[in-house]
Amino acid sequence: MKAIFTKNRFEAFSDGIFAIIVTLLVLEIKVPHIKDPASPWELFIALFYLLPKFLSWIISFLTVCVIWVNHHRLMNVFRSIDHGIFWWNAILLLWVSFIPFPTALLGDYPGNQLAGILYALILSFMGFSFYFLRRHVSRHPGLLQPSADLEEFRKGTRLVLIFGPLLYLTGGALVFVHPYLAFVVFLTVTIYFIFPHATKDYEKE
Amino acid sequence: MKAIFTKNRFEAFSDGIFAIIVTLLVLEIKVPHIKDPASPWELFIALFYLLPKFLSWIISFLTVCVIWVNHHRLMNVFRSIDHGIFWWNAILLLWVSFIPFPTALLGDYPGNQLAGILYALILSFMGFSFYFLRRHVSRHPGLLQPSADLEEFRKGTRLVLIFGPLLYLTGGALVFVHPYLAFVVFLTVTIYFIFPHATKDYEKE
Amino acid sequence: MKAIFTKNRFEAFSDGIFAIIVTLLVLEIKVPHIKDPASPWELFIALFYLLPKFLSWIISFLTVCVIWVNHHRLMNVFRSIDHGIFWWNAILLLWVSFIPFPTALLGDYPGNQLAGILYALILSFMGFSFYFLRRHVSRHPGLLQPSADLEEFRKGTRLVLIFGPLLYLTGGALVFVHPYLAFVVFLTVTIYFIFPHATKDYEKE
Amino acid sequence: MKAIFTKNRFEAFSDGIFAIIVTLLVLEIKVPHIKDPASPWELFIALFYLLPKFLSWIISFLTVCVIWVNHHRLMNVFRSIDHGIFWWNAILLLWVSFIPFPTALLGDYPGNQLAGILYALILSFMGFSFYFLRRHVSRHPGLLQPSADLEEFRKGTRLVLIFGPLLYLTGGALVFVHPYLAFVVFLTVTIYFIFPHATKDYEKE
Repeated sequence: MKAIFTKNRFEAFSDGIFAIIVTLLVLEIKVPHIKDPASPWELFIALFYLLPKFLSWIISFLTVCVIWVNHHRLMNVFRSIDHGIFWWNAILLLWVSFIPFPTALLGDYPGNQLAGILYALILSFMGFSFYFLRRHVSRHPGLLQPSADLEEFRKGTRLVLIFGPLLYLTGGALVFVHPYLAFVVFLTVTIYFIFPHATKDYEKE
Repeated sequence: MKAIFTKNRFEAFSDGIFAIIVTLLVLEIKVPHIKDPASPWELFIALFYLLPKFLSWIISFLTVCVIWVNHHRLMNVFRSIDHGIFWWNAILLLWVSFIPFPTALLGDYPGNQLAGILYALILSFMGFSFYFLRRHVSRHPGLLQPSADLEEFRKGTRLVLIFGPLLYLTGGALVFVHPYLAFVVFLTVTIYFIFPHATKDYEKE
Repeated sequence: MKAIFTKNRFEAFSDGIFAIIVTLLVLEIKVPHIKDPASPWELFIALFYLLPKFLSWIISFLTVCVIWVNHHRLMNVFRSIDHGIFWWNAILLLWVSFIPFPTALLGDYPGNQLAGILYALILSFMGFSFYFLRRHVSRHPGLLQPSADLEEFRKGTRLVLIFGPLLYLTGGALVFVHPYLAFVVFLTVTIYFIFPHATKDYEKE
Repeated sequence: MKAIFTKNRFEAFSDGIFAIIVTLLVLEIKVPHIKDPASPWELFIALFYLLPKFLSWIISFLTVCVIWVNHHRLMNVFRSIDHGIFWWNAILLLWVSFIPFPTALLGDYPGNQLAGILYALILSFMGFSFYFLRRHVSRHPGLLQPSADLEEFRKGTRLVLIFGPLLYLTGGALVFVHPYLAFVVFLTVTIYFIFPHATKDYEKE
């Protein structure tokens, strides 16, 4: 089957979705209502109670940036886009575009274990989509750039399964120790991914 | 008449709209209000009642992706963009950009037959726009790429009328049997379109 | 002064804004609340009362498309982007990005003359921005493509003043005859602009 | 370390975010509720009370445009995008994407000093991100275009620290004199930046 998607428009479509999600996140933080509009102190207290929302917003913002980086690196080793890549990518974007909802949930109910679990679940679904997207390409090596190292790529695909879903799910399980641990875990995982050692190029030297 | 639209900017404009719609859909799912913020069980029940909203969101997400794929394939066979293509495309995007509304309606009133019918109507209006867009190009074959097969293209245009509006409208009519059938029908139609057999290239071999 | 903006990124920025505005418009149409969620008749009545919102949404969608077409044509005759073009364009986008507000106002208060007047005012401010953007380029002919006809361009600039703000303002004034005339006028003006005769290429034959 | 980001997709991602933020701002202005829907006078009064929201919207719209111009100019002197640039840019976009919140706060509580201070704080965080982004590039001169003047660039980096955060923070401090001064200060700073003298090219003649 020949390539039916122009890689350019496919990337623009994905990038557009990433850019919109990262920006929509802030819409979930609503201006608080206070009784005395001129009182800085009352506004300060009201903003202080929004702290979980600010935190969950920052975590999700950075998480979507990490996903974008991984997505970008993955696209770089693809030569062309077939139906399989398109639809696994669409499933991936489905979970990414859902992130504003668990983010808002975590911000509204920071002390509720289910909010942390749902957040972890959605991110692990996203991680699984990355895995299936990569597995599809592993099985159709003709989709890879000639410069890409297939063995490295397959090894990386197995690693994604561990570093993605497994990390998020074990992280999410920690909410049973204390619900607020969800914030610590998700922020740590994201910051860990920001540093370059955690990523690879899958290209032949 | 010469081409007055650069195909590049025209595609970027359309892609932007698709990417935004697909992402805005999640904004219609609001965080539920619960009495005891720390109760996972109460939150679970509240989320359970949002199930129709999650379902209608997934259906619309995948449907917009299918429309994007069809749009992308169609653009590939166009050589240049004239006023007719631009405005039929604008009408198409008008209906696509309206999808968040019937999606939210279906999610809020899953047991209401009118919600299913309106959803089917909007998608069939979208299908009709595809038909008129293609018919305009069929009548101005100079707008097609030299590699495109005009006879195939015209045959495909007639098929769009059957597979698009007709499928959605008969699907929508099933809500009179049971309102929840709307979800089954729209999800089935979308999944059917995801598999490659349902689409064609309209290019000479 | 040399060109400091890459035309490509400048156009992408403008196109992004157009695509987002045209899509955000639908967010102003909220799902109505009905007492019996399963009653198609009650839902029908509720949707019927939303008619002014649907109408104002369609008018604004088509209007933004018309503005995009004009913007696209204008950009085509520019050779490079200087500070003047950037900031007149930013002012233009400011008014375009405001359109969702008067659109929602017109949809919520269709019988209120002020809603129609505000809509006409915003669109005429947008038209004035087009005029000043063009006037700036008329006075710096080096910003035009060598193929562009300066005399034609200047004539077109004066026409913009008449067909843009003047048309909208006289249209808006008709709400004093009857508030609902606003819908008729704005839809008519937009449809008039859709047909190609109303636009020109400003290029030497 | 080799460049792992394609500058093109990186710019498209950033531009998308800028375009979305600038457009989302208007969503914070809600249609007012009035008792007599047909009364132009009552609507006029209701709109008059929205004046602080309109003002804060215009200020933020122009501010985001100024940031975009600075971002655009900065990107022009970069040769390639490394991890450092990507993540300092992500931090920059984090603060930019937060702007709708302090904008809405300022519009809702114009007489509250904390609203003005928070606005100034967020913009100065944004300014600091610009500074750190530039400092990172100053220390890795290989990331600059060969045509760029390193000495000029480093001098500009130090100036950013003064003209960005310092200007916003001293501006923000003026709310202690009178809260409404926030509007005057932020609008003045933005308009000051619009005029070309305030910016530089950092390129060798």
